[in-house]
Amino acid sequence: MIETRGDAATLDAADPLAGFRDAFELPAGVIYLDGNSLGALPKVTAGRVAETVRDQWGRDLIRSWNTHDWIGAPLRVGGKIAALIGADAHEVIVADSTSVNLFKLAAGAVALRPGRTTILSEPGNFPTDLYVLQGLGRFLDGRARLKIVAADDLADEIDEDTAVVVLTHVHYKSGRRWDLEALTARAHERGALILWDLSHSVGCLDVRLNAAGADLAVGCGYKYLNGGPGAPAFAFVAERHQAGLASPLSGWMGHAEPFAFDDAFRPAGDIRAQLCGTPSVLGLAALEPGVDLHLEADRALVEAKGLALGDAFIELVERRCEGLTLASPREGRRRGHHVSFTHPDAYAIVQALIARGVIGDFRAPDIARFGFSALYTSFAEVWDAVEILREVLATRAYDHQDFRRRAAVT
Amino acid sequence: MIETRGDAATLDAADPLAGFRDAFELPAGVIYLDGNSLGALPKVTAGRVAETVRDQWGRDLIRSWNTHDWIGAPLRVGGKIAALIGADAHEVIVADSTSVNLFKLAAGAVALRPGRTTILSEPGNFPTDLYVLQGLGRFLDGRARLKIVAADDLADEIDEDTAVVVLTHVHYKSGRRWDLEALTARAHERGALILWDLSHSVGCLDVRLNAAGADLAVGCGYKYLNGGPGAPAFAFVAERHQAGLASPLSGWMGHAEPFAFDDAFRPAGDIRAQLCGTPSVLGLAALEPGVDLHLEADRALVEAKGLALGDAFIELVERRCEGLTLASPREGRRRGHHVSFTHPDAYAIVQALIARGVIGDFRAPDIARFGFSALYTSFAEVWDAVEILREVLATRAYDHQDFRRRAAVT
Repeated sequence: MIETRGDAATLDAADPLAGFRDAFELPAGVIYLDGNSLGALPKVTAGRVAETVRDQWGRDLIRSWNTHDWIGAPLRVGGKIAALIGADAHEVIVADSTSVNLFKLAAGAVALRPGRTTILSEPGNFPTDLYVLQGLGRFLDGRARLKIVAADDLADEIDEDTAVVVLTHVHYKSGRRWDLEALTARAHERGALILWDLSHSVGCLDVRLNAAGADLAVGCGYKYLNGGPGAPAFAFVAERHQAGLASPLSGWMGHAEPFAFDDAFRPAGDIRAQLCGTPSVLGLAALEPGVDLHLEADRALVEAKGLALGDAFIELVERRCEGLTLASPREGRRRGHHVSFTHPDAYAIVQALIARGVIGDFRAPDIARFGFSALYTSFAEVWDAVEILREVLATRAYDHQDFRRRAAVT
Repeated sequence: MIETRGDAATLDAADPLAGFRDAFELPAGVIYLDGNSLGALPKVTAGRVAETVRDQWGRDLIRSWNTHDWIGAPLRVGGKIAALIGADAHEVIVADSTSVNLFKLAAGAVALRPGRTTILSEPGNFPTDLYVLQGLGRFLDGRARLKIVAADDLADEIDEDTAVVVLTHVHYKSGRRWDLEALTARAHERGALILWDLSHSVGCLDVRLNAAGADLAVGCGYKYLNGGPGAPAFAFVAERHQAGLASPLSGWMGHAEPFAFDDAFRPAGDIRAQLCGTPSVLGLAALEPGVDLHLEADRALVEAKGLALGDAFIELVERRCEGLTLASPREGRRRGHHVSFTHPDAYAIVQALIARGVIGDFRAPDIARFGFSALYTSFAEVWDAVEILREVLATRAYDHQDFRRRAAVT
């Protein structure tokens, strides 16, 4: 229990991950609790990107595809991400966006389960996941369609018509965590495949895809992986599905021999079949150092620290702040690394906090969301953030017109 | 006619575009004739990318979506590209890769022509175009399929079953240019739509999509636009089709209100419907300065100079070099800005040239390809490149084992 700021500082002093904070650029005067939306910049990344621009693109030009192994980057960085999610290196590739990868893998999954016509997900799943699955359903023209079932009923609704279950492991608003092993097992019992969106779990939770027997997964590079705004995403395909999983987006980089320039598509028989167009070399260059940092950290410690930060935040908010209602699971084992509270004035409160240097975010209609990065958030920051939040609420500092205007991105 | 190096230098001295060369980083000792594969680095780009990484991502973090208008970048940069291809600003958006955009627009086009089951293209079109259309056909499961028809017969093969004609305006190997106006008109006569891949024409030819009445187009950011390796691509949808063209890749950025976080997809009624996932902010930051440079140049001059460089190259090679056969149209008005020759030892010849600082590229099975950038290639470089090529051929310098090994990317 944290009773004083001193207690928080004591936890920081004993934190085996505390040294990682120095690897990030964090602006002075800011408590950054939005790394679940855009992860902070690793210090080495600016240099790596500059080198890629100046020395590789500018000086070595087209030769860099070979000499700087641009062509190998999707597989190389994917192999590193694999180690963070309990997969084998050859099962993960970096490509496109999370949305595009979800389309590829969900379409491929439906084709692997002919005769089954349901893609199952939950209401309130991250919107792009639902949108992509809706689009896929329209496109499949009756062969499969999205069915949305309340989370509590979902396990029971998986049946002999379910081709694939598509869920976000950690919910983007509430932070609620699905039991990845149990639900994967349930899907398999019913003969369905499962596709996990790991966007809010990769880089924070100790995900173990292969131990759970998961089939497919996608995830985001710009949140906890610190890959930069709009970083390329990743796709995981369990080895047993790789030869059979056809991507509808069969671009040249997914060809068995991209530089043979044949007229007929012949898919790479491995994870490279999930590549489509030319990879974003600058995006990969920015993503790789973030992933490398995560590889240096013990994954069990990362998971535990992020949850402990969340526990401390929940406890302090409930003890010291008025008017906020917890919207996340209280138990750490049922959460990811972000915590949400509801308040009718959540939007204005988040703006007032930002004006005071505490950066969390708002999610419609009434959620204030705060993310904790095990690699750079301290317990003292959690204490300070709650103290500022307490003051904003107690003084109604949020009740000002400047904080009530909505910007384009909130 | 260029008889001497002095003649070439005279042309350079009179070149109204010569000043642009100084805007690019070009390594000493290199004659870069591969800007059609990866455009050179504009000098301002490194700084712009560094600023985006350090000041925007690193310092301003998540707030940059608003304060640095990251959210508006796909439309802003798309609007600039529109001016290069004869489109209106609201008809072009930057998103994903060329391959992914081709999938979106071809799928949308098929849905706009119900009952028509043919997607028409030509053999030897850029492979990813054919692969994507093959994948789309498999995915559409009989509703439409790719038909490949020889270029000479193509106009006649457009019929009442043709949903969409998909062609690359300038052929990636031969540089042969389709008559964009005539073929667009022909498609429309037969009630078909047309989708142009402008990857090898944007930034070099004075493309006029709206004057031709074109329906749809895609194009590449990393060739003549100098947007950097794996730069995001663009999509053009003529205003009249925007409300009706449904993307199968219906991700959150294509939603009418992305930040309402509704469960149901409701497409943006404009070009933004062609967005899918989170845009590559670093990719856009690198692309924009290249596009800005092109906006400063007179497009008719750019087209004319690139063709004149190609004419000079053809003439000098045919006059001074042995054993090469022209594989591009001789007439400038039927070409883009690259020129190809065949030779049984093309691969080794290209490697020997690269070893001497003349960077062109090889395309299987026997093509040596040379691209001329109106913004940074000089007539003197064309002279020097041909002189080095002459020497490589005359001395059989390419006939060395080092030049015969194939690298991963050729």
